[in-house]
Amino acid sequence: MNLKALFAFLAVGLFLIFLTPQVITRRARAPLPEADRAAITLVLTEQQTAWNRADVKTFMQGYWNSPELTFAGSSGITRGWEPVLARYRRQYPDQAAMGRLEFSELEMRSLGPDAVLVLGRWHLTRDAGNLGGVFSLAFERFPEGWRIVHDHTSADRDPR
Amino acid sequence: MNLKALFAFLAVGLFLIFLTPQVITRRARAPLPEADRAAITLVLTEQQTAWNRADVKTFMQGYWNSPELTFAGSSGITRGWEPVLARYRRQYPDQAAMGRLEFSELEMRSLGPDAVLVLGRWHLTRDAGNLGGVFSLAFERFPEGWRIVHDHTSADRDPR
Repeated sequence: MNLKALFAFLAVGLFLIFLTPQVITRRARAPLPEADRAAITLVLTEQQTAWNRADVKTFMQGYWNSPELTFAGSSGITRGWEPVLARYRRQYPDQAAMGRLEFSELEMRSLGPDAVLVLGRWHLTRDAGNLGGVFSLAFERFPEGWRIVHDHTSADRDPR
Repeated sequence: MNLKALFAFLAVGLFLIFLTPQVITRRARAPLPEADRAAITLVLTEQQTAWNRADVKTFMQGYWNSPELTFAGSSGITRGWEPVLARYRRQYPDQAAMGRLEFSELEMRSLGPDAVLVLGRWHLTRDAGNLGGVFSLAFERFPEGWRIVHDHTSADRDPR
């Protein structure tokens, strides 16, 4: 390797160093990579399937297993994976109360390399009366996959 | 500059290139820089002040001025800056309906270099009856500053 080649290599290296932060800043508002969209869709599909066999514990696998997990709604903020599980068990004590869950109108927006905002509708078909509304989920990427770190769920004022 | 120095410089350059993505990935869950926390707090304080002089248009400056802005709640999802403004004007037609707004219990979580999740409580003191609840805001960093790109707001089932 001669001196000229070394200088060229060096110039490319420095160019990359200075380019990297901009690329990453721009990526924050870039479209969500298809692999991430598919992985997040799978988390939600698995939640739906687990709910529909009344398996709340598996449904809860979609959430970040942390005391910092938060769930917001018309009863305020619930903190921590265990209390969120307890809240679901209290609100939906049996299969009849749980009904049949369907997510729809999913939309995903990248908030950075490791965070995605997911909006959508939830609908419960139940003999006791249908329920539905919208949700906002903040997903973060963990070594084990994408997990919900914050869930804000509303029930429709006028159920559909 | 001799060859040895060039090689050393090159080695440092390559090390930085490979280091950068990891640093940035970790930063996604790093504590929120104090300057960002202060800037976001200021946006919310200015919103509160504008609301309390019945200036909805200035209140709306805290939101991303885009058709992609979203507002979720018990009436579903409202899309776009203008429709969100129209919704506020419809729901709170005059100063009496607007009342006195107070935000409290703010908490901020970094979702990456340019996105922050803000949770908090809102409270309206009004002669017509107080209202309150929780909100989840997704803030993104823009050249003009931090703006709310998504707002999910709930009213308490049992008002405090």
